[in-house]
Amino acid sequence: KDNKNNKTQQNLGKSGLRVSCLGLGTWVTFGSQICDEMAESVMTVAYDSGVNLFDTAEVYASGRAETTLGNILKKKGWRRSSYVVTTKIYWGGQAETERGLSRKHIIEGLRGSLSRLQLDYVDIVFANRSDINAPMEEPFIPAEIVRAMTFVIDQGMAMYWGTSRWNAVEIMEAYSIARQFNLVPPVCEQAEYHYFQRDKVELHLPELYHKIGVGAVTWSPLACGLLTGKYNEGVPESSRAAMKGHAWLKERLCSDEGKKQLRKIKELHLLADRLNCTPAQLAIAWCLRSEGVSSVLLGVSNTEQLLENLGSLRVLSQLNPPLIAEMDVLLGNKPRNAKKEAKS
Amino acid sequence: KDNKNNKTQQNLGKSGLRVSCLGLGTWVTFGSQICDEMAESVMTVAYDSGVNLFDTAEVYASGRAETTLGNILKKKGWRRSSYVVTTKIYWGGQAETERGLSRKHIIEGLRGSLSRLQLDYVDIVFANRSDINAPMEEPFIPAEIVRAMTFVIDQGMAMYWGTSRWNAVEIMEAYSIARQFNLVPPVCEQAEYHYFQRDKVELHLPELYHKIGVGAVTWSPLACGLLTGKYNEGVPESSRAAMKGHAWLKERLCSDEGKKQLRKIKELHLLADRLNCTPAQLAIAWCLRSEGVSSVLLGVSNTEQLLENLGSLRVLSQLNPPLIAEMDVLLGNKPRNAKKEAKS
Amino acid sequence: KDNKNNKTQQNLGKSGLRVSCLGLGTWVTFGSQICDEMAESVMTVAYDSGVNLFDTAEVYASGRAETTLGNILKKKGWRRSSYVVTTKIYWGGQAETERGLSRKHIIEGLRGSLSRLQLDYVDIVFANRSDINAPMEEPFIPAEIVRAMTFVIDQGMAMYWGTSRWNAVEIMEAYSIARQFNLVPPVCEQAEYHYFQRDKVELHLPELYHKIGVGAVTWSPLACGLLTGKYNEGVPESSRAAMKGHAWLKERLCSDEGKKQLRKIKELHLLADRLNCTPAQLAIAWCLRSEGVSSVLLGVSNTEQLLENLGSLRVLSQLNPPLIAEMDVLLGNKPRNAKKEAKS
Amino acid sequence: KDNKNNKTQQNLGKSGLRVSCLGLGTWVTFGSQICDEMAESVMTVAYDSGVNLFDTAEVYASGRAETTLGNILKKKGWRRSSYVVTTKIYWGGQAETERGLSRKHIIEGLRGSLSRLQLDYVDIVFANRSDINAPMEEPFIPAEIVRAMTFVIDQGMAMYWGTSRWNAVEIMEAYSIARQFNLVPPVCEQAEYHYFQRDKVELHLPELYHKIGVGAVTWSPLACGLLTGKYNEGVPESSRAAMKGHAWLKERLCSDEGKKQLRKIKELHLLADRLNCTPAQLAIAWCLRSEGVSSVLLGVSNTEQLLENLGSLRVLSQLNPPLIAEMDVLLGNKPRNAKKEAKS
Repeated sequence: KDNKNNKTQQNLGKSGLRVSCLGLGTWVTFGSQICDEMAESVMTVAYDSGVNLFDTAEVYASGRAETTLGNILKKKGWRRSSYVVTTKIYWGGQAETERGLSRKHIIEGLRGSLSRLQLDYVDIVFANRSDINAPMEEPFIPAEIVRAMTFVIDQGMAMYWGTSRWNAVEIMEAYSIARQFNLVPPVCEQAEYHYFQRDKVELHLPELYHKIGVGAVTWSPLACGLLTGKYNEGVPESSRAAMKGHAWLKERLCSDEGKKQLRKIKELHLLADRLNCTPAQLAIAWCLRSEGVSSVLLGVSNTEQLLENLGSLRVLSQLNPPLIAEMDVLLGNKPRNAKKEAKS
Repeated sequence: KDNKNNKTQQNLGKSGLRVSCLGLGTWVTFGSQICDEMAESVMTVAYDSGVNLFDTAEVYASGRAETTLGNILKKKGWRRSSYVVTTKIYWGGQAETERGLSRKHIIEGLRGSLSRLQLDYVDIVFANRSDINAPMEEPFIPAEIVRAMTFVIDQGMAMYWGTSRWNAVEIMEAYSIARQFNLVPPVCEQAEYHYFQRDKVELHLPELYHKIGVGAVTWSPLACGLLTGKYNEGVPESSRAAMKGHAWLKERLCSDEGKKQLRKIKELHLLADRLNCTPAQLAIAWCLRSEGVSSVLLGVSNTEQLLENLGSLRVLSQLNPPLIAEMDVLLGNKPRNAKKEAKS
Repeated sequence: KDNKNNKTQQNLGKSGLRVSCLGLGTWVTFGSQICDEMAESVMTVAYDSGVNLFDTAEVYASGRAETTLGNILKKKGWRRSSYVVTTKIYWGGQAETERGLSRKHIIEGLRGSLSRLQLDYVDIVFANRSDINAPMEEPFIPAEIVRAMTFVIDQGMAMYWGTSRWNAVEIMEAYSIARQFNLVPPVCEQAEYHYFQRDKVELHLPELYHKIGVGAVTWSPLACGLLTGKYNEGVPESSRAAMKGHAWLKERLCSDEGKKQLRKIKELHLLADRLNCTPAQLAIAWCLRSEGVSSVLLGVSNTEQLLENLGSLRVLSQLNPPLIAEMDVLLGNKPRNAKKEAKS
Repeated sequence: KDNKNNKTQQNLGKSGLRVSCLGLGTWVTFGSQICDEMAESVMTVAYDSGVNLFDTAEVYASGRAETTLGNILKKKGWRRSSYVVTTKIYWGGQAETERGLSRKHIIEGLRGSLSRLQLDYVDIVFANRSDINAPMEEPFIPAEIVRAMTFVIDQGMAMYWGTSRWNAVEIMEAYSIARQFNLVPPVCEQAEYHYFQRDKVELHLPELYHKIGVGAVTWSPLACGLLTGKYNEGVPESSRAAMKGHAWLKERLCSDEGKKQLRKIKELHLLADRLNCTPAQLAIAWCLRSEGVSSVLLGVSNTEQLLENLGSLRVLSQLNPPLIAEMDVLLGNKPRNAKKEAKS
């Protein structure tokens, strides 16, 4: 595997696809929080800085995120082969048939995405997971998904497919189905990853990486802004936590757990000061240091924020083992492998 | 799935094999802690009470557990078809080639077990896991295991095979290999399960049950006696925790975590009193209530203990949802599914 | 196999594709060393002389070789079915995603090639190898390559696929993956072959030809001009060895090994004189005589050179076994099969 | 992979089979050069010293090697599971049908071996190669071999199968056939390996190890005694080179190449003196140091020789990188990976 401290591009899992360590997400921002001009500025700075991965989803801003992204790509005229576009399928519309992971919706949904993106294909199409508690008819639905994904790849509508918010067993199941029926297995999982959400990316995905080559693209490195210190003194009016539809975020902040996390965040700020970087840069560099992570998606509202976030690449080289150990003690949530049990 | 409150036998996972809800383990007892006469009495009471599952392993008492079990089965002359014998392969002898999960040891080890058991076949042979941190050459070793297990089944040396102390991804991998190469997949996992060890059986195995039909046979329902209250007032001289080779148990009891658990155990005793049952009965019934569990293995030193434990079947009907909820609050460790995440 | 002394066309490996014994390469020349008018003259002479194989690569002259080749093919208006065009994928552009053998670059790279060539399809697309020491994630990357090659064939973008500068085990692995997953195996390997580079083409590829039908298209029959005697008296200013980016060639010429080779070259010139042919004709005929070779690619700067090179076909009939044996003695590097070993 | 400097047992390739780093061969000795009493003494010392791998072949001493080995194993009464017996099939008798790698001879030959060995199964059966120049009907014969090997494994006559003196492409072909038809792939190759025979074990087998998990069992670590210095002053009358049927050895010694090798051997003796070990110990330790080697087979005529050879395990820890580099310079035949070629 590449020494990430020295490289800014690496293979996505064990696939041949080269992606930048930092990718640009469009969630909440494109087609919604920020105007199209700002979106264009942000993308331009990102592309010029070596970011080649742009992530969106059919559901973001009801499709407007894809439309904005597509418009900018068209306007900029960058070579299609020089960047990677990923989207996610799950909620595509109001009709009952326009959501979920039926063959019908995977194909129709991706067609809609391609149309909004004004592209012939995306590089990775993700099978999103709406509700991890929703039952799937076993083994019919998983087989339908893998077959539909193989279809869109064979049609040239996508280069690869991945999963988004699936657990390790679900991903293994998809792999197993692909092997059994000679279909295309997924190449990566898109997962939440930050100081307070570690188990999946640090514990479960590395096992999948070694066994079946699945890589990890992670999102929310700043935990919706929590880690920037934005909420250290309460919820500002203009912040995401104050937005409609983000009540859950505000609730979380005010919970006991939330308060405990805020205390840790403050300590991490002192550490960032010591390293001469911002709290956000430290948080992003910390994500990048994880061996299982192929790319970390950034979500930014303006170019200043993006440039600051990109500075995390410089911080990465400072994250030596003693410092990582110090952060693990501070966080107190390092995932441990199930320890040796007593019985034999 | 059967309503377990009314039945004492059920299918092992989604296989056709019917096993009693309570099985008899031979760990630490047969060929070691208890004399062969007591072992015979225990087995007789068990069999007469409807227990049809007898579990052992090549390593238990260096093979003497299997020898004792085999002698009793032979002496009693019960019809071979009326009971289920399971054993586990991993440590078979001192030689380097007599341990592990090579094809050679799986086949030779099982032959040794059958010879000591004086049986032509076991019903389930388990691939034990010695050290869950030991790396496996991927995908060669897993494929070798599945192929060897299929061989012993095709040879008639075992009816089914299962895993013991494997994690969910490893089991899925074995299933995937079986599907890819048209081999026999495992039917169950043997796992530790009690008040203080819940995640695997309550969280991960149910998913495997739904996806690939793997059932759970669980052991240590009393956490090596901890839950009976035996250690409530310290470690008695005659108890397992005072035995050679069980220092780990004593240490655990004296840790902060151990003290916290002892407090909970005392509260559960009050609950058992309220239900008019013993703490052990409550603990075993609590295991049985779990939808993922096909059978709970008991480890007993005498017939009184066995009869007491078997009484848990009566307690099971009292474990209604409000009571289970009360116990969950008391235990404070109910595994939660990763809750719905905010982003889509 | 055809008696090549009498035929100028033969099957490519064990495929049905008929290729001329001599093909025309575009490396270093098209779009670079020679003007488009000369390129057209050369191609016209070649085509009129029975050459039906034109080889290029996306990387040659940064794509201009393909553009020139495509322009000439369009202008000449020869029937598409009357010739064979081959290209190679590996380095397509500056972006990280525009190089290598990812599915993305194989597909996008070939699209770029087809666009420059103004063709709907090439006859063979080669998976080039940049760095034979670069590790590949096994078996993920090889599987991705075979799958992508099958895709471009199924899309009609190529008739066949081949490998370029892969070793025998790597080619067998691709074949194995194709068989296992019901994908399309490669039909030929493109390899360097001349007096001083013999092992692969004489020793390893014939085995692949017999086992899996892979043919050999060879290049550099004159070792970058070395064998013509061009460098017998030093490095002329206008020669390739004096060009920027070819310092390696000059260095090689001046090494001890290089001086030894120059002595042999002088002796071969005497032999050519005896046969009444030029040194280049002898060298090319010598390549053609090898049973493993389906086609030898020529690289020429003008029509005179081409016509001279094509004369090698007449020389071929003179290369009888005694003469070949004489040349082997002179060269002193005939690859030997591992001889019979003593132990059984 | 195990740190071989500290361990004397390791996995055979990527299989689960544990074999001792040093194995005992029976070629030329058992049933021939040495009497059965000596054979028994040698085996007893070997087994007691931790050697668990005993290698023979149906052809050795016309079957008497197997008979002797079987008699000793029976007499000693060691547990079958505590050692590994391997044999090789190719020449089984005078009749035309009693040699080669037909399904008929593989099955009948192995039955004969088992009968002479008085065993129910061998651990590894090797498909020997008589004549590497003999053509095989492609792909029929290779498929017949893999299918017959799978049959004897499914019958329980062998635990694993391997190849002996096959080249890398042939082994890949067997693997490919096994994958395509869901048969059992080989686990190791038996190959000659010593100071003057390096390419296969150092260059080709490591690639197979990484790609398909095939391990290497090597033989002739002393090059038929050449490396012990036995022939430093000519061919002694009692030596192997003076024996009937070993004229090839004498010839080799007297060739120019042979004389050159003798000079190197003398220098290596000085090195052995410096390390305070015998030339044979140095030569064997040098074989063991190679990362691709799972086990080195010793051929000894008496217990003194065996004990001396076993001392090589102590020498192994002295073979640090600088020393290995020094030996490489001295030998002047370190295999090199095909270097980067110029063309792209």
